[in-house]
Amino acid sequence: MRLVSLSETLPGEPVTNQDMAARFGLHERWLDTMTGNRSRYFCRPDSPPGVPRSTQELATLAGEQALLRAGVDPASLDFLILTTASPDHLMPATVNLVADRLGLNDLPTFQLTSGCAGALQGLYTARALLAGGELRRGLVIGADTCRNLWPSSEAAIAQLSPMEMVNFALFGDGAGAAVVEAGTDGPGLVVEHMFTRTVGKGRAPAQIVRWYGADGAPMVTDARRGSVREPMGEEDYKAIERHVPEAARAILDELVAVTGWRAAEVEHVLTPQLNGVMTEKIREYLGIRPEQAVSCVADTGNNGNALPFIQLNRAMQRIAAGTGVGGRLLVTTVESSKWVLAGMALRHRPEEAAGGR
Amino acid sequence: MRLVSLSETLPGEPVTNQDMAARFGLHERWLDTMTGNRSRYFCRPDSPPGVPRSTQELATLAGEQALLRAGVDPASLDFLILTTASPDHLMPATVNLVADRLGLNDLPTFQLTSGCAGALQGLYTARALLAGGELRRGLVIGADTCRNLWPSSEAAIAQLSPMEMVNFALFGDGAGAAVVEAGTDGPGLVVEHMFTRTVGKGRAPAQIVRWYGADGAPMVTDARRGSVREPMGEEDYKAIERHVPEAARAILDELVAVTGWRAAEVEHVLTPQLNGVMTEKIREYLGIRPEQAVSCVADTGNNGNALPFIQLNRAMQRIAAGTGVGGRLLVTTVESSKWVLAGMALRHRPEEAAGGR
Repeated sequence: MRLVSLSETLPGEPVTNQDMAARFGLHERWLDTMTGNRSRYFCRPDSPPGVPRSTQELATLAGEQALLRAGVDPASLDFLILTTASPDHLMPATVNLVADRLGLNDLPTFQLTSGCAGALQGLYTARALLAGGELRRGLVIGADTCRNLWPSSEAAIAQLSPMEMVNFALFGDGAGAAVVEAGTDGPGLVVEHMFTRTVGKGRAPAQIVRWYGADGAPMVTDARRGSVREPMGEEDYKAIERHVPEAARAILDELVAVTGWRAAEVEHVLTPQLNGVMTEKIREYLGIRPEQAVSCVADTGNNGNALPFIQLNRAMQRIAAGTGVGGRLLVTTVESSKWVLAGMALRHRPEEAAGGR
Repeated sequence: MRLVSLSETLPGEPVTNQDMAARFGLHERWLDTMTGNRSRYFCRPDSPPGVPRSTQELATLAGEQALLRAGVDPASLDFLILTTASPDHLMPATVNLVADRLGLNDLPTFQLTSGCAGALQGLYTARALLAGGELRRGLVIGADTCRNLWPSSEAAIAQLSPMEMVNFALFGDGAGAAVVEAGTDGPGLVVEHMFTRTVGKGRAPAQIVRWYGADGAPMVTDARRGSVREPMGEEDYKAIERHVPEAARAILDELVAVTGWRAAEVEHVLTPQLNGVMTEKIREYLGIRPEQAVSCVADTGNNGNALPFIQLNRAMQRIAAGTGVGGRLLVTTVESSKWVLAGMALRHRPEEAAGGR
């Protein structure tokens, strides 16, 4: 399988740490130093036309951009995959609304539920679909609107518990996409190895994000705050800090073992993107030099299923600018909700090597 | 690909129309005659131990049963797929909690978001995964807990609008599963043809089921009832009545065209299971004789992603009882949320034909 084109879509203007302080009462200094994130993007229900407001709108824009860059007719697609943790509805699957918006009809569609490992699970599924030989070209999109997990009013967000506020501050909205084709003959990123697998049997989820019906969250008793609504999300940061770096190391080791590439010589290394601080720590822990690393979370916030597509898109931008042309890419993603490791090794195939196609 | 074993899980005792009248104020006669459903099953948070209370518990039981019937060690599974429209959380994906409960580790997992077409989308994905040659055996589970879409208290349900009450009355909870293996060599149901595809580009969704954050549904203005909470779900029954029968016909026609089988001679025909009345109408419209049809919705309620697995399980029970041994199965499923057609043709391969394996 080959990734023919990549894209990324971020809604509206970046929301800076200064904005977060002014709008939600967060501490700007804390955001700067503790998260290392400088900005993130949020879908807003009141955005002007053209600015995406939902998962389906983000996904559609990312898909359109990837199709445009690949120079292929949407009608030539043989399947569509969307991966997301924040669908617009429980039903219909958001992927089918995206298909409609892209003008697609009469093709298989799949929506995968996942978090940080979602992009690679989507690409893994695409590779399986292409392996049969009947399907030749697909579009894989990752999109999340984490903003929809939180109260719509800024006043209500300012009242969140500290634990919830941390989560709110780390996440953002966005989408990314890839046009994929069977075979390795042509320009783009050729997948040399890929895997996704559960790990840590019996280990508790380190991240839970809930959904509710019309009633909203039930009331629960909080030790300090008394009777409060059950929080939408919970994270076990200690578990994440303990397990994610070693998980990233395990993925990198496996990719290196299978490809025979030396990690120090790989031109583009895409590391897990939890937040700016953690991502930098993991890079150092893995022994990856700054110029090898392709990171985006400090500017985009953690937008889940979109992140690896955005990293791949930025790697392609580096290549287009002349850095690491014809080189290798290693992608490491760790899902800490319930533990999943996913990795991918790719090699850039320049246009000239592909016979100028 | 071969379906080696099938299973079904329904939580607790059936909830009869008499129960629905007593507990939720529904009209027993209306349920009898307008829906044609005699019973359904609901997960309850206060169920005794051993009775499934959630999507993950339903899915786990269905998976365990399918593994037991196939006589295979869970550790021999190469992948796990769950299809659902009602995951327990947005994150982690419920499939990874099910993997843990089944004692699985170190394998690829996928959770597909879908409704009535979900079971076949899961099996389609399984077939693609098996086509690569590396993966040889998987478990595909469909599960839904529609009960979780509604208020937890019976008093609050009795206050639902008539439109919501209709939806509440039609749906139920359940799970079903299949152990699948690569190749056609062995007993079970051999897949001869399968497809899933979007149709009706530009046609509005005929079913919407929403999810909310901690706040619950926003207030909206209802023409008759004034300011009310936005409903969890909406259905366009006119569109469903108009399009589903013709969609089922299109699926059946395609399966017949590809296999060369004559519909009138096919031993087991699995039709869309909206409710007892609609299912019977569609059977007549398709010209399927009562003894060919394999239906369950009148007893199980519409439990979405579980339904086709339950129908397949009941077809296997018929075969085990001596009806249609070595025969053919045609499966037609129509997703009306946003329109998807999915179909599958299978042939039963008896143990003796498979060399007594």
